[in-house]
Amino acid sequence: MYRTHTCGELRLSDKNKEVTLAGWVQTVRKFGSITFIDLRDRYGITQLLFSENLNEQLEANPPGREFVLQATGIVNERSNKNANIPTGEIEINISKFTILNKSALPPFTIQDDTDGGDDLRMKYRYLDLRRNAVKKNLELRYLVNRSTRNYLHENNFMDIETPFLIKSTPEGARDFVVPSRMNPGQFYALPQSPQTFKQLLMVSGYDRYYQIVKCFRDEDLRADRQPEFTQIDCEMAFVEQEDIISMFEGLVKRIFKDVKGVDYTEAVQHMTWEDAMWTYGNDKPDIRFGMQLCNLKFPAHSFTGKTDISSLINGEFAVFNDAETVVAIAVPGCSDYSRKQTDELTEWVKRPQIGMKGLAFIKCNNDGTYKSSIDKFFTEDKLKAIAGAAAAKPGDLVLIVAGAEERTRKAISALRMEMAERLGLRKADEFKLLWVIDFPLFEYDEEGNRWVARHHPFTAPKPNHIDIMISNDPVIKDASKYLEHPYAGIKANAYDLVLNGNEVGGGSIRIYQRELQEKMFAALGMDETEQQHKFGFLLGAFEYGAPPHGGLAFGFDRLCAIIGGSESIRDFIAFPKNNSGRDVMLDAPSTIDEKQFDELQIKLNMKS
Amino acid sequence: MYRTHTCGELRLSDKNKEVTLAGWVQTVRKFGSITFIDLRDRYGITQLLFSENLNEQLEANPPGREFVLQATGIVNERSNKNANIPTGEIEINISKFTILNKSALPPFTIQDDTDGGDDLRMKYRYLDLRRNAVKKNLELRYLVNRSTRNYLHENNFMDIETPFLIKSTPEGARDFVVPSRMNPGQFYALPQSPQTFKQLLMVSGYDRYYQIVKCFRDEDLRADRQPEFTQIDCEMAFVEQEDIISMFEGLVKRIFKDVKGVDYTEAVQHMTWEDAMWTYGNDKPDIRFGMQLCNLKFPAHSFTGKTDISSLINGEFAVFNDAETVVAIAVPGCSDYSRKQTDELTEWVKRPQIGMKGLAFIKCNNDGTYKSSIDKFFTEDKLKAIAGAAAAKPGDLVLIVAGAEERTRKAISALRMEMAERLGLRKADEFKLLWVIDFPLFEYDEEGNRWVARHHPFTAPKPNHIDIMISNDPVIKDASKYLEHPYAGIKANAYDLVLNGNEVGGGSIRIYQRELQEKMFAALGMDETEQQHKFGFLLGAFEYGAPPHGGLAFGFDRLCAIIGGSESIRDFIAFPKNNSGRDVMLDAPSTIDEKQFDELQIKLNMKS
Repeated sequence: MYRTHTCGELRLSDKNKEVTLAGWVQTVRKFGSITFIDLRDRYGITQLLFSENLNEQLEANPPGREFVLQATGIVNERSNKNANIPTGEIEINISKFTILNKSALPPFTIQDDTDGGDDLRMKYRYLDLRRNAVKKNLELRYLVNRSTRNYLHENNFMDIETPFLIKSTPEGARDFVVPSRMNPGQFYALPQSPQTFKQLLMVSGYDRYYQIVKCFRDEDLRADRQPEFTQIDCEMAFVEQEDIISMFEGLVKRIFKDVKGVDYTEAVQHMTWEDAMWTYGNDKPDIRFGMQLCNLKFPAHSFTGKTDISSLINGEFAVFNDAETVVAIAVPGCSDYSRKQTDELTEWVKRPQIGMKGLAFIKCNNDGTYKSSIDKFFTEDKLKAIAGAAAAKPGDLVLIVAGAEERTRKAISALRMEMAERLGLRKADEFKLLWVIDFPLFEYDEEGNRWVARHHPFTAPKPNHIDIMISNDPVIKDASKYLEHPYAGIKANAYDLVLNGNEVGGGSIRIYQRELQEKMFAALGMDETEQQHKFGFLLGAFEYGAPPHGGLAFGFDRLCAIIGGSESIRDFIAFPKNNSGRDVMLDAPSTIDEKQFDELQIKLNMKS
Repeated sequence: MYRTHTCGELRLSDKNKEVTLAGWVQTVRKFGSITFIDLRDRYGITQLLFSENLNEQLEANPPGREFVLQATGIVNERSNKNANIPTGEIEINISKFTILNKSALPPFTIQDDTDGGDDLRMKYRYLDLRRNAVKKNLELRYLVNRSTRNYLHENNFMDIETPFLIKSTPEGARDFVVPSRMNPGQFYALPQSPQTFKQLLMVSGYDRYYQIVKCFRDEDLRADRQPEFTQIDCEMAFVEQEDIISMFEGLVKRIFKDVKGVDYTEAVQHMTWEDAMWTYGNDKPDIRFGMQLCNLKFPAHSFTGKTDISSLINGEFAVFNDAETVVAIAVPGCSDYSRKQTDELTEWVKRPQIGMKGLAFIKCNNDGTYKSSIDKFFTEDKLKAIAGAAAAKPGDLVLIVAGAEERTRKAISALRMEMAERLGLRKADEFKLLWVIDFPLFEYDEEGNRWVARHHPFTAPKPNHIDIMISNDPVIKDASKYLEHPYAGIKANAYDLVLNGNEVGGGSIRIYQRELQEKMFAALGMDETEQQHKFGFLLGAFEYGAPPHGGLAFGFDRLCAIIGGSESIRDFIAFPKNNSGRDVMLDAPSTIDEKQFDELQIKLNMKS
């Protein structure tokens, strides 16, 4: 060992001990003939004091920032104590030291507030990882990992490794593929998730399985997506939806406790997908704050048990009359927004990412009057009624967007989040969980005029919807009436766990009957040959006593990021890739040798 | 939940409770009007008793083997107790039951002694996994996993995930590569190990890292190799060889304790590579038993401090005279081997896998006489002297092989293991650890007349050998004298952990100085451009304060197998591949779609 102690552990109680530390030079300060060096390692920082007698050595080989130093000395009480660090009451009076390795001047400062830009820090990721800000993230990630494993172990789950070199069955996202040298002309695929393997494990009787495992998707990378990402992947047999919900709600609460010291004792709300779409405009609402949607038109999509209040806006205003959807939110305390501010909000919703044509507003003044951008189409009584429907209080600002259903709901969702952000309602240290349940089993694919699986093809319909699925032909005869097809109303036995407006986990009860699975594949347009080629093993397994089962997977990177108070997963990955899927530190991907092409019996076929 | 209890937990103390179980039908037995069903799940087997009143339902839908059953009833004391299973004192008097899923007749019996062959069981792996024998292996694997994580956590190690899509730097084994769609013409590689990443983490200050992680090698598969395998991968900073040895010896002892209840308190022997080769003929000796080698010739390879006893065999026997190496072992208690038995052993060493031309033997009879296959070349006194040198006792059989150094040492090693196996000296429940240290840093590559790294290019030489490496030119001028080159004598700061004759772990202290690393790359024939292209990031990292560090990796599959008393890793992997690298259950690898080729901008280039 190059050290007797770490740089984070010495205290006043260690006074007069001789110790040896090893670490990195954080700072060097000279006061007359005395030199102070702050030595840093993973555990903390300790002040070293070099007296005059070491000056000759210090001058011959002056230690600079990020040099690796080994130093021996006596623990002394500091005269000038530093209450900000745990070792701040002591310093080491150094008797001898060795420079273990030198350092060139780092390309950016190794500090919380670094002067390095994103690209530079990605290239020198090994230096960025030294910064306290990044280290705290990776430590949090490890704590979440550890907490997860402990909880699942205590609940009889077994970590069982599933293979990485599997079969390509592109459904939805693209597979990464791996040419097989030993089976020329054939390819493995990297798993998008261990879905079918964990289901096979249930068939095999391993009734509680988990893995913290890398998954791979060759998608065009949006910001904050990674081609390889980590899942907490879980599956249970002999369970119903509520069993899974309660098990994994327990897991997240345990993580809150272990990692953040937060006692999350309140019951987690369950919200149907329809309610989420109706009330928040999206299926992963942030419920830390209100600003619920006021649906001023009744959309064509099925929303059961909702009240149609569209009469409130019937009138002269063509934009509202023509729109498929008109929705409002009441932003608290913003009735005093200036013209400049409302103009800026209007520009905000007109940006291409949002894509609205405009924004209407009603200022609910504290004096009980209403002032609106649509004054000329609506009387003050009407404005009052609309504001009332949006649950606006005096002092609130009602914002209204109108347009096509999907885009408008997305826009109001984004606007709601934006206003919450501006008002400081999205607090990084406040956690609010939500289960969204009862998703539609199918989505309509306009291009192919057919059904696609909303979750994945292994998700079971609600028990009372199985018959609808079995007894109807999935073919959509009239595209314009797809909403009337019986399949459009089938709900899935699926659930998402939402944390602070982010989907952190999702899963479903699975199909475990061969006939139903075949019907599902057929509904998705897979003929028998394709079913057999891609999923023959699973259909086969269902013939030999498959138990009822279901599961869930957490996006581990995202879960860590949100618990860490960030929404950037990249900050919580040791060696992330950039938005082109490149590792700029390694300079990967890269070309390969002729010999490799030759052995794999493939060649490039570049589109000029 | 489909059950109130598992099939392994009910006891006499649960008498009169109403319970619901769910599981698989193991057996159905009818006694008159009563039916007994043994219901099985992961936790055990419970006997269900169906009385006459359920006969109608049983006959309408008779549950067969491997059917999935849910059954409710009262816990009763059994009249006919079964002491062999923990639930053997009770049975459940069933009041109602549901068949949750049917099963076709399995292609082999789900029993410890199954009637299914290897291929069939691989194809229906999900059924094979139901067998108790396989389940016990996966449970053991999970226990080793859990024990490892606990120990490393308690010792301040952090699990940090490293990337799977990295850069191809073929050195030694072939990389699996992954075409990048987003970077056409370029490829990722799957990691053969996280070696360079864990070293970067040391540079970053994460001084104790571990991962239980998949690694990939595209090698021609010998029996019991898998293209994807799992490592316990560890690295520590500010340590010397002895620190790592003691930390990971502690880990294996902890695993013995947690998993097998074995207190392994004895000190683990350290043996130099030279001693291992001299005394056992190989670098992973099984030291549970003796039969140490008697070196009857002094080989050209450097063995320091050994005694040359070749005068013992100087004489008339041309085979010995001409051989590079002559080695003997004394097999205990086999002096009474018949002619048939010695002939069979001779055939055994002449098999192509062993490749010897013949086998000489000396029977050390209990009456003090010596009888030998080489009687006509050696006097009885000479035979006695040779037997004495081999430490043979009366009743032993001395076996002698002769030939070229490498092949002969392999042959005697294999023969020693074979004889131990036949004599029952390799006990599955006896564990013996051994550290093999001081490996040569380089191996000579005849084909290229150059040095290759024995361990890998990041292994440091012994501290007192660094100068030899730095101050000499690696070029081998005279191939016939490569053993005289200074590099031939450089020893590595490397160590292997051997368990019962199997290498279960290996590692080294790493190079952490840029100059030395460059010298190493150059010695391996890499010019500056190639060094920069492949490992520029690592050389760069070494410029910014790299600490002394080292580490180790365990072959997790093999470690589990040996602790489980087996030498077949495949039995300890949930979904293994066969010897052609195929997953016969999935039928992978397989062809991919034209669209995939098109998007990846590659095509096949099949040789004929």
